[in-house]
Amino acid sequence: MEYMALRYTVGLDLGGTNIKGGVLDEGGGIVAKGMIKTEAESGPGHVIGRLGMLAERLMREAGLGKEDVDKIGVGTPGPLDPAAGLVLSAPNMPGWKMIRLKDELMGVTGMDVKVVNDGNAAAYGEYWTGSGRDERVQHMILLTLGTGIGGGVVIDGKIFSGAHGAGTELGHMIVKPGGRPCGCGQLGCIEQYASATAFAREAKRRIDAGEVTSLEGEVTTKDVFDAAADGDAMSRAVIDRGIDYLGKACVNLVRIFDPQVIVIGGGVIAAGEAVMGRLRRSFDDQTWTVREERVEFAAATLGNDAGFIGAAGMARG
Amino acid sequence: MEYMALRYTVGLDLGGTNIKGGVLDEGGGIVAKGMIKTEAESGPGHVIGRLGMLAERLMREAGLGKEDVDKIGVGTPGPLDPAAGLVLSAPNMPGWKMIRLKDELMGVTGMDVKVVNDGNAAAYGEYWTGSGRDERVQHMILLTLGTGIGGGVVIDGKIFSGAHGAGTELGHMIVKPGGRPCGCGQLGCIEQYASATAFAREAKRRIDAGEVTSLEGEVTTKDVFDAAADGDAMSRAVIDRGIDYLGKACVNLVRIFDPQVIVIGGGVIAAGEAVMGRLRRSFDDQTWTVREERVEFAAATLGNDAGFIGAAGMARG
Repeated sequence: MEYMALRYTVGLDLGGTNIKGGVLDEGGGIVAKGMIKTEAESGPGHVIGRLGMLAERLMREAGLGKEDVDKIGVGTPGPLDPAAGLVLSAPNMPGWKMIRLKDELMGVTGMDVKVVNDGNAAAYGEYWTGSGRDERVQHMILLTLGTGIGGGVVIDGKIFSGAHGAGTELGHMIVKPGGRPCGCGQLGCIEQYASATAFAREAKRRIDAGEVTSLEGEVTTKDVFDAAADGDAMSRAVIDRGIDYLGKACVNLVRIFDPQVIVIGGGVIAAGEAVMGRLRRSFDDQTWTVREERVEFAAATLGNDAGFIGAAGMARG
Repeated sequence: MEYMALRYTVGLDLGGTNIKGGVLDEGGGIVAKGMIKTEAESGPGHVIGRLGMLAERLMREAGLGKEDVDKIGVGTPGPLDPAAGLVLSAPNMPGWKMIRLKDELMGVTGMDVKVVNDGNAAAYGEYWTGSGRDERVQHMILLTLGTGIGGGVVIDGKIFSGAHGAGTELGHMIVKPGGRPCGCGQLGCIEQYASATAFAREAKRRIDAGEVTSLEGEVTTKDVFDAAADGDAMSRAVIDRGIDYLGKACVNLVRIFDPQVIVIGGGVIAAGEAVMGRLRRSFDDQTWTVREERVEFAAATLGNDAGFIGAAGMARG
């Protein structure tokens, strides 16, 4: 009997609404992918069963058995103890308190499982096969502008998780002393200014204050970006202000990490130049003049696949 | 003939005014130490000769020959290419532009040389034998409040130097958007608010503005701290304001690095509770409430020896 190296990894991205997943080959190529509802309201045990179900369905679609897959990587929201595979809590999923996800999913699937932070997984995904895939890039930061701001830091080709393994919390860098109260208890966190949510909320505030704009009533983030593209000055101002705070946060990240690339993710990057070009200019205006900046800014390329791709990549270790 | 492991390292700390140095044993114990004038006005060649002279004098005092010392570590100010041992520039030393310090000092001494950033060296020194010496501490940040704010970051027991090896620039984190102009070209850098220099300058500004205080005329940082200890309300306010900005910078560093210990260095820590106690309270007031903070704050313990100790430690690798 010959020893045959196992060459595939399953990546799963656990969200409050959906579970996304895929089977990845050694190079990070997607062999199969899919999405199912989380059904979080039915509790942790049910959700863990669904994680296992999706993993098995994806392996079946890829024509692979358990002997072909060396690990399942799962990206999860909320604070966790990655070594133990323990989810301490997950705010958007009822009943998720001190859940031994690694052990339970290993029990369900009979396979080895690694649990990672979802922001870190997305960062590792972009590093592995997305906008950081150039092998010269070994130091990269991802900031994903969504409901909040998530992301992660890659140093020397590895995710940086801090002293306690909990990962970075880049969305809670303070960019405005005494600024908007954040749900975390701080004032002036970057996610209060440059998350997708923050753009829509700031537009709403200005509409209610009677500013001149083509927008009215309840507005989505997409409405704000569409209106800006159509020349609405108020929407333009809302976006520019948020991106300027993001530029400030990037100045600090460059002083601290001196990364090669900062990758921006989230739906708003579809606005192209209005986000990425503006961010570059804002950064250049606010950063030091001691030496020329070597950092590049890039839009994320993997979209919603980044999480499961990175979870698989981190599980490969 | 038996092979005998070389067990000593020389550490040198090159400053614009003085060169400090020591011979360290494997455990970081100081076997000999000393200081000489830099005589920077006589140019790089002269200074490099003096670095070699101090190294040799210290080895002689320690009763060691070149065969007992495995390396010389040199901490230098200003941007450098540590791999090449090349000092790109050193603002306070005339003629220091693109100086091949490693090669030249190896030529002078006939010994192996490693060149490191001086802020990193001090951080590594505190980690190795100072306030981070407890072996459970593997993730530590040093902030030294001096003319500017220097320091360094230890991750997993190693200095973190960023993608380009240039080291972190923690003094140039922006803590006040649109704040005081910094020499680096940014607005609102932390060193404009919480360096030793900044305390004295803010006190001077308030004296000139006619605020009620026991201080008058030109004041030093020490005057401000002495006056505060004697109950001068203005001096107290100057210190509190600076330390509050420092607390904000620490919140961001904890969100980003999640370190076990933040060490504060510089002469002002002699003020004790007025700095360290106030910093802890300021941090606690400004940080999030999502979970209890695990970071500890500690005063540096090595004083001016941190740089040469850490340079030796980093040279040991």
